[in-house]
Amino acid sequence: MKLHFLGTGSSYPTTQRGVSATMLQHDDGSVWLFDCGEGTQIQAQKVTVSRQKITNIFITHLHGDHVFGLPGLLCTISSQLGLTEEDLKKKRPLVEIFGPLGINKLINTVLTISHSPLAFQYRVHELVPVKEQYPEDWEDTQVDVATLTPHPSELPGTRITAITDSDGNMHWLLKDDEQWDVRAGWIHHRVPSFGFVIREKDRTGTLDMKKLLTLGIKPGPMYGQLKGGNSITTEDGKTITPDMVVGPPYPGRTVVILGDTSDASPLAHLVQGCEVVVHEATFDNSLKDKALEFGHSTPLQAVAFAQSIGAKTLLLNHFSQRYVATSKDKSKNEESVALLEEQAVAALGGSLVNVQCADDFFVYDIPSQPRNMATTQQC
Amino acid sequence: MKLHFLGTGSSYPTTQRGVSATMLQHDDGSVWLFDCGEGTQIQAQKVTVSRQKITNIFITHLHGDHVFGLPGLLCTISSQLGLTEEDLKKKRPLVEIFGPLGINKLINTVLTISHSPLAFQYRVHELVPVKEQYPEDWEDTQVDVATLTPHPSELPGTRITAITDSDGNMHWLLKDDEQWDVRAGWIHHRVPSFGFVIREKDRTGTLDMKKLLTLGIKPGPMYGQLKGGNSITTEDGKTITPDMVVGPPYPGRTVVILGDTSDASPLAHLVQGCEVVVHEATFDNSLKDKALEFGHSTPLQAVAFAQSIGAKTLLLNHFSQRYVATSKDKSKNEESVALLEEQAVAALGGSLVNVQCADDFFVYDIPSQPRNMATTQQC
Repeated sequence: MKLHFLGTGSSYPTTQRGVSATMLQHDDGSVWLFDCGEGTQIQAQKVTVSRQKITNIFITHLHGDHVFGLPGLLCTISSQLGLTEEDLKKKRPLVEIFGPLGINKLINTVLTISHSPLAFQYRVHELVPVKEQYPEDWEDTQVDVATLTPHPSELPGTRITAITDSDGNMHWLLKDDEQWDVRAGWIHHRVPSFGFVIREKDRTGTLDMKKLLTLGIKPGPMYGQLKGGNSITTEDGKTITPDMVVGPPYPGRTVVILGDTSDASPLAHLVQGCEVVVHEATFDNSLKDKALEFGHSTPLQAVAFAQSIGAKTLLLNHFSQRYVATSKDKSKNEESVALLEEQAVAALGGSLVNVQCADDFFVYDIPSQPRNMATTQQC
Repeated sequence: MKLHFLGTGSSYPTTQRGVSATMLQHDDGSVWLFDCGEGTQIQAQKVTVSRQKITNIFITHLHGDHVFGLPGLLCTISSQLGLTEEDLKKKRPLVEIFGPLGINKLINTVLTISHSPLAFQYRVHELVPVKEQYPEDWEDTQVDVATLTPHPSELPGTRITAITDSDGNMHWLLKDDEQWDVRAGWIHHRVPSFGFVIREKDRTGTLDMKKLLTLGIKPGPMYGQLKGGNSITTEDGKTITPDMVVGPPYPGRTVVILGDTSDASPLAHLVQGCEVVVHEATFDNSLKDKALEFGHSTPLQAVAFAQSIGAKTLLLNHFSQRYVATSKDKSKNEESVALLEEQAVAALGGSLVNVQCADDFFVYDIPSQPRNMATTQQC
């Protein structure tokens, strides 16, 4: 899996830096997009990953620098799909969109008023915020969710409400299938903001073909039974258990991608160790008060959170446009992202051994977890 | 007055070319923006004209490549205004927005859901289309215009309905003040699309100071009366008429800026001669059928229209992304905008003496009209 940072600036896009958009490219080539500020579709043209591979879009919160590029991206994906009318009649691709309550109304309204047809179907899953997420001065805690006329390409969506555990901690369950467990947690910001915890499930180990053939078991349905965790009995009456012929599992990786936040601690209960966390650092440590006032973080806060969840790597993004990207200025002065990176590096500790400020188009290859060869046989 | 082309591509923005956005910069520095596709605010950073100078925004039609950049542009203008709270309490700048019915709902919904405050006020004037503008297959001729809760920065807007003259021709009146006469006309496209006719009113000629002093009239209120077109009587009983001391008027210029169209003739009755018309040429002449199918034009069609309204200069824009900009490829092959320009030049005729394909960031200085020195006294 790889993370591709398409936009690492905050507030508004500039000619030097895009606003929030991060692609998570899976091993099978499919892409999950996290946030979609204005110009994301242009930034996406500068990388080798195709916009057409996007299957899931996750929006952390509804501020413009995280969502204004979404209608345009959907239209452009559609116009470039190159599907024939026959393809469309048979089966159209599906894009799943997850975001805070209100995201569906935004998408639906903009696509409808602009009279934009889509060559694929989409379904919106809205995360319903809890009262803790609304600032005290929020006048209208209720988003107007009057029934919208569905867009012709819109499949019925869902509302995802918070699950509260016995300790009073909350999360939202987005996906739980054979491959993935994806949950959201709430984080402090000026508007309801979420972080996403993406867990790749452990994959079954590899069959030891050499040993199977030695045991006289030829390729066939028994292989599937063994890989599925079941014992089998051979024609000559021998019982073969999976641990005899299936290698150790491939441990899944955990990736945490947060929205804007001045304090992500309400999400921490969801993570006990992860390969990488993407956390904002809008301002440098000297502007901590300003960061707090606007619901943002400093490198020091981001490092403390990464340590608290046992992260191995911390990638920072969402830099105020006052800071020049490290690729343009390495001087670590008060107007350079290099300063923020220096402040973060200085605070490294715990399991956290790596920190980096992401520049636009930075690619991070998420390392595989080491397999525990000692406890099971090698395949 | 100058035209600044910020985006000259159609459909979706690329790294090479933006989508529709054209600035009309007035002599006093203020700017009117025509269309605002995604990324317009980024393109605007590449020119010397400030986004903060925008006082009026005109949207030709509601397709995404003409409007998806509008919410982001409004937010960024706001964030960079740098007004103090005191300024805001006293008087905030006003941006007037004109566009087809539905534009207010789009702006209101996006700004409200994204919880975007604005440091200026805005007012939306919606042009109500006539039935001729709706394609036959348009299922919902009615835009849902249920009452919206006004955005905190939104002043009550207006609805502008078509005026039909005795010949059955229609237009929409947008501005009629001392300086400007701005009207819209409808043009054929797949969705209701407008063209804007901007007429600078004639400005009064200059007072002939030398002659005034010879006549014994010293600077004072009488100068204003003469310039305002009134005769005066001097202390010694002489009658002075304006034509004796006021030079010939400065003739106003006329600029026509069209939205997407396969046929702009329904607007032609509004223009009898103009300095410049901006007309789309999405496809080259060989793709005339495709152009018509998608509601677009070829260079030949654009030239014919420009000739029909007595335009002196025709500027083409809204090129399919299949064509490479002239600045990148001058070879006039079938994948170059240079081919479209060649096709247009070949068709020049009538009053039309100049044609050019606009590249992104092309600036056109609209020439002053010659003053008719023969009929009035020189100042």
